[in-house]
Amino acid sequence: MNKIETCFSPALLPHFGYKNSAVVVIDILRATSSICVAFANGAKTVIPVETLEECKWFQDKGFLAAAERGGEKIEGFDFGNSPFSFRDEKIRGKEIVFSTTNGTRAIKATADAALVIICSFVNLEILCEYLCEKQLDILCMCAGWKNKFNLEDSLFAGAVTRKLIKSGKFITECDSSKAAMQLYDNASNDLFSFLENSSHRIRLKKLNIDEDVRFCLDPDSSNVLPILSGDRLTDYYPEFSKLNERV
Amino acid sequence: MNKIETCFSPALLPHFGYKNSAVVVIDILRATSSICVAFANGAKTVIPVETLEECKWFQDKGFLAAAERGGEKIEGFDFGNSPFSFRDEKIRGKEIVFSTTNGTRAIKATADAALVIICSFVNLEILCEYLCEKQLDILCMCAGWKNKFNLEDSLFAGAVTRKLIKSGKFITECDSSKAAMQLYDNASNDLFSFLENSSHRIRLKKLNIDEDVRFCLDPDSSNVLPILSGDRLTDYYPEFSKLNERV
Repeated sequence: MNKIETCFSPALLPHFGYKNSAVVVIDILRATSSICVAFANGAKTVIPVETLEECKWFQDKGFLAAAERGGEKIEGFDFGNSPFSFRDEKIRGKEIVFSTTNGTRAIKATADAALVIICSFVNLEILCEYLCEKQLDILCMCAGWKNKFNLEDSLFAGAVTRKLIKSGKFITECDSSKAAMQLYDNASNDLFSFLENSSHRIRLKKLNIDEDVRFCLDPDSSNVLPILSGDRLTDYYPEFSKLNERV
Repeated sequence: MNKIETCFSPALLPHFGYKNSAVVVIDILRATSSICVAFANGAKTVIPVETLEECKWFQDKGFLAAAERGGEKIEGFDFGNSPFSFRDEKIRGKEIVFSTTNGTRAIKATADAALVIICSFVNLEILCEYLCEKQLDILCMCAGWKNKFNLEDSLFAGAVTRKLIKSGKFITECDSSKAAMQLYDNASNDLFSFLENSSHRIRLKKLNIDEDVRFCLDPDSSNVLPILSGDRLTDYYPEFSKLNERV
């Protein structure tokens, strides 16, 4: 039996032993959802970077560049953080550099793990299938909001944990994972309503991203599995790299 | 309206602005429960210290000394961390120095707040009455376990938050507080069973502390309000300093 733990914030990461584990990086609204969509639409690689300076450096070398801070697209870059902007024909076969407030930092912070996988509700099912094959301990790494706990990432950690424990191949003794499962059980009938008054929804209300939120909470719309190799992400299942038909 | 936030771990504290707030320090199993019991039994002051060396220094000066690490009483000190050990006639009117794995560290970490209050289920009601009078923003500071999230402290944060919001004098936009309330709502019918498989219960099973746990989860058994002043805690309501009759 492999073990599952959940880390609610990048600031808590030093207190977890994850070097030999598979780290599942979660930034539901919206970085990890958007990265999945980019691969589902044929992106060749995604390079997560921490700073806007690095992002600009890559853009100047000819990469497509996505940059968001505080929920908003940064002027001068090709994309912000909306999953819909990555459903564009022009990203097919391209290398994309990506810098966001929370998600890309969480990816960089866990880069020394045995395996780093990018996920969201959009690739929940294929993620869990893959994790069942791998037989590694798992750390669900919630990107949170500026080092604070957030509801949407925790819900997803709960969804993954619930599914993996049902498989019979995993256990958890981690209080964070148990809390995340409780929250997911409370929310699973209607994730959108459950998150209606979450801090992120309140924060981003003025940006009018309800459609983004609905998309990001819709399970299994894509069959991608973005995995970190060196400093870049590639799709483990490139043959499936397309949005499912129903989307 | 005043605001409530919840910090799930001392490691997250730098990401909260709490200097002008009332900080509610929570270490249900068992430091903050035991401190309340000490005051309910007439202790004059409790001095929280971080290290065993400090604890020994005070003991050598004639203080009663309580010291716990990893759930166990440390050899050579007068008490460990069990609330029952503080129901002893010999603590009446005494100064007690106290050092534990998580709780006393959380108290020290928040000592620069406007107000620091020690609490547990045993003084939940009187705590909430007092907070309603004070009209300060509130940070529920969960001591956790070695900087990780834990269930029992989060449940209590949820209990406080639910009660204060019901009073109509407080709001919360904090995702941690919302999650804590959800967990408390799920658990409130039977806290003991809810925590049956919590990491702390599993960890301490060999120590046979079920009676301690039941006592620590029993609400409102005392009318004490330990408040930090300088480097020591005193009871804000010394005239009530006794266990309620039903205990």
